[in-house]
Amino acid sequence: MTKITPQSKDFAQWYLDVVKEADLADYSKVKGCMIIKPYGYAIWEFIQAELNSRIKKAGVQNVYFPLFIPESLLNREKEHLEGFAPECAVVTHGGGKKLAEPLIVRPTSETIMYDTFSDWIHSYRDLPLKINQWANVVRWEMRTRPFLRTTEFLWQEGHTVHATSEDAAVEVDRALNMYKDFDRDFLSLPVLTGKKSRKETFAGALYTLTTEALAKDGKVIQAGTSHHLGQTFAKSFNVTFQDQNSVVQHAWQTSWGLSTRIIGTVIVCHGDEKGLVLPPKIAPHQVVLVPIFKTDEEKTRIFDELNGIKEALEALNIRVHFDERDTVTPGYKFNEWEVKGVPIRIDLGPRDLEKSEVTVTRRDGDKFNLPIGDLEQEVPYILDKIQENLLEKATLFLKENTREASSLEEMVKILDEKGGFIKVPWAGTDEEEKKIQDETKATIRIIDPIKSTEKLKCFFTGRETDTLVYFARAY
Amino acid sequence: MTKITPQSKDFAQWYLDVVKEADLADYSKVKGCMIIKPYGYAIWEFIQAELNSRIKKAGVQNVYFPLFIPESLLNREKEHLEGFAPECAVVTHGGGKKLAEPLIVRPTSETIMYDTFSDWIHSYRDLPLKINQWANVVRWEMRTRPFLRTTEFLWQEGHTVHATSEDAAVEVDRALNMYKDFDRDFLSLPVLTGKKSRKETFAGALYTLTTEALAKDGKVIQAGTSHHLGQTFAKSFNVTFQDQNSVVQHAWQTSWGLSTRIIGTVIVCHGDEKGLVLPPKIAPHQVVLVPIFKTDEEKTRIFDELNGIKEALEALNIRVHFDERDTVTPGYKFNEWEVKGVPIRIDLGPRDLEKSEVTVTRRDGDKFNLPIGDLEQEVPYILDKIQENLLEKATLFLKENTREASSLEEMVKILDEKGGFIKVPWAGTDEEEKKIQDETKATIRIIDPIKSTEKLKCFFTGRETDTLVYFARAY
Repeated sequence: MTKITPQSKDFAQWYLDVVKEADLADYSKVKGCMIIKPYGYAIWEFIQAELNSRIKKAGVQNVYFPLFIPESLLNREKEHLEGFAPECAVVTHGGGKKLAEPLIVRPTSETIMYDTFSDWIHSYRDLPLKINQWANVVRWEMRTRPFLRTTEFLWQEGHTVHATSEDAAVEVDRALNMYKDFDRDFLSLPVLTGKKSRKETFAGALYTLTTEALAKDGKVIQAGTSHHLGQTFAKSFNVTFQDQNSVVQHAWQTSWGLSTRIIGTVIVCHGDEKGLVLPPKIAPHQVVLVPIFKTDEEKTRIFDELNGIKEALEALNIRVHFDERDTVTPGYKFNEWEVKGVPIRIDLGPRDLEKSEVTVTRRDGDKFNLPIGDLEQEVPYILDKIQENLLEKATLFLKENTREASSLEEMVKILDEKGGFIKVPWAGTDEEEKKIQDETKATIRIIDPIKSTEKLKCFFTGRETDTLVYFARAY
Repeated sequence: MTKITPQSKDFAQWYLDVVKEADLADYSKVKGCMIIKPYGYAIWEFIQAELNSRIKKAGVQNVYFPLFIPESLLNREKEHLEGFAPECAVVTHGGGKKLAEPLIVRPTSETIMYDTFSDWIHSYRDLPLKINQWANVVRWEMRTRPFLRTTEFLWQEGHTVHATSEDAAVEVDRALNMYKDFDRDFLSLPVLTGKKSRKETFAGALYTLTTEALAKDGKVIQAGTSHHLGQTFAKSFNVTFQDQNSVVQHAWQTSWGLSTRIIGTVIVCHGDEKGLVLPPKIAPHQVVLVPIFKTDEEKTRIFDELNGIKEALEALNIRVHFDERDTVTPGYKFNEWEVKGVPIRIDLGPRDLEKSEVTVTRRDGDKFNLPIGDLEQEVPYILDKIQENLLEKATLFLKENTREASSLEEMVKILDEKGGFIKVPWAGTDEEEKKIQDETKATIRIIDPIKSTEKLKCFFTGRETDTLVYFARAY
């Protein structure tokens, strides 16, 4: 019945099958742009609500800046421009006329925001400034995949301004830890965190911190990132303030973001041969009820019982869907909710009913009977258990697939056979890093924040170093 | 201290002053696009949350469709195209190359959505389809004003598909009533509702229902609208379904939307000489606490007391802001919170404290003392009263400013002197309606849903009619 390609056969195709069969997204007539369907968008809404509340708790306020950036503003910060110019969509006509100055559809909002910050900030009393926006952004992509890489995507972008580099660094760390905690608590996703190599740093930033998750195919995927922007933009956009001693200084800035790509991350990190596996906290339906019956009389009794269960569980703030359809078989329903990753399925047939029991199927494995009277106590507990179990499994997988290598050959061998992270001593240059990428498709995902206490030899150059990095092949 | 132009002197300038001084929005370097600042965006978030919950309760699901519409798709529905083509922003370049086909930045999403609906809908079982999206849209505007008319704005657009015209009509009514109830319950805004004249109907629609509010300057402002699209788009985009008898039919569609313009509507309908007046339900701070003290000892005692009040009120889910600033005077604070439209201000000074009292100032007028011990009981009650009082005042204003006229001259005289709605019998043609607009700037805002039981004479043409319409000068 399922139309999903096995992960082992073709992971990329498995991914596309899951997106389609779980009804998460659809293709559009616009190259590289997807349609997020109700089931996929509901997941995004749970992610938004939780992350938004964490952002606000950190004293960050939401705003909305224009979609369009005048070309001259984007051009103002050279390094940033070089990073984004190749990906820009350009509006040249408006209201039936050619525009005097082309407008760029925002690929990110540093330039349009910081030009305004120079008007908003005058004194140290105006700092820190902490804002965030939920918005769509556009980056022209050649090869796209729903959620993972799309020309238009949805995200939040936080932007803060501080009086000192240290204050900015604290905010960069805070945002990174917010993402890390959110990934763990809400998405059951363990991530490695640390600094990006210079080559992989955000265009214009002093440094970039990142959260990196491990997909089931052994490839690594970047989730949220947090950038210390130094004074680069402050100098280009004249973001200055008068300090306590009336001295005018350039401000220090940060930006940090997380996008709809995180939905793709959840799919590739938790999904299995049967389809999507959703952590309960982002599942649109946490529990699905499936009735099994032959006669009208059975149907009446079973529907009554299931309606009662639905009401009781909903009173506990559990999201319950009662699958009342009479146009498809129970088997078809079992398959559909499995593909859609629903954490708990509860089936009720005449024989169950006689024993006042239901059959509970956990999407993460187990199947067992439970007395109907126990559901109110057990279901919340099982949902928590599933949330934890997914995190444990993913953590174990991450641990088992983090290996060491003493040479490039050994690294490539492991990556070819197993994928995962390869932790190695590193003293290479940007050019040497690029050479490795060109030859092996592996990149430095993070620099380990913990330095080695003893001197090590770089696995590639042989130079002495105390720096450890994680290489991987990435999405 | 206040920099707000009196309403009576120059209402348009008063409006711009309020937007600026209440810190709602800022101008950007992009022509016609505004920046929504934290205080303004917080208001939008309350509006979104409440309306979103009402939309979901009606069984409508949220989705997200692409920002860009291929030119050929927009061209598919001729009448719709003619309505929107002059306002389009056009992307001609992407990823450094000229595009084979230009992309339109969505002015509204009928065309991009309905092209996909033809893939989603096959059988009567797929109907009704009810979706909504929260998104940014772009309409190139010549003369813009923050919130009221901007080139880019935020909105929700609902789109539904039905098997019959009657089903679609029920949905069009439901959406209109949702807006009307929302305006009344949440924004304290009374609105007149009814059908638009043909001239003012949404491009491509069979008919448009609208909610129209009355600003304090006597001009009328269109809030949410709801369109019966008939089969126009279904025919252009091939949205068909097989009915119960296996006959393929074109579907019937609706769309309905409400935008950030509603914030402008709240400003012009409730604002007064002192600035913004916010209905409590959308006030970012429902209560502001202002301490008044001279000595450190007084400060300690007063801060303790106010912190206690804050905690007690927040426990009742009231949004409280304690203005602890020591860089400005109490007088400055009074003015600032007045300009920002905060419903209740609570001041506490040493003499109040001796009597265990506070001074309560209602933004809608009253000022009185209250025992501190009564606040938990009184504040929720006062907030409700303010919400009701604003609605009552606006309802009275709407009633007093709805007049009749027996000739064009009389209507113009009333509009020049007082503004408001002019209710008149009408049997004119589209051309005659246009002539009135050209000569007097008045347009038909709504056609009264209630027909006259006796024959009347059209106030302009003298023809016999049972139709009554409301003319007004509008935003």
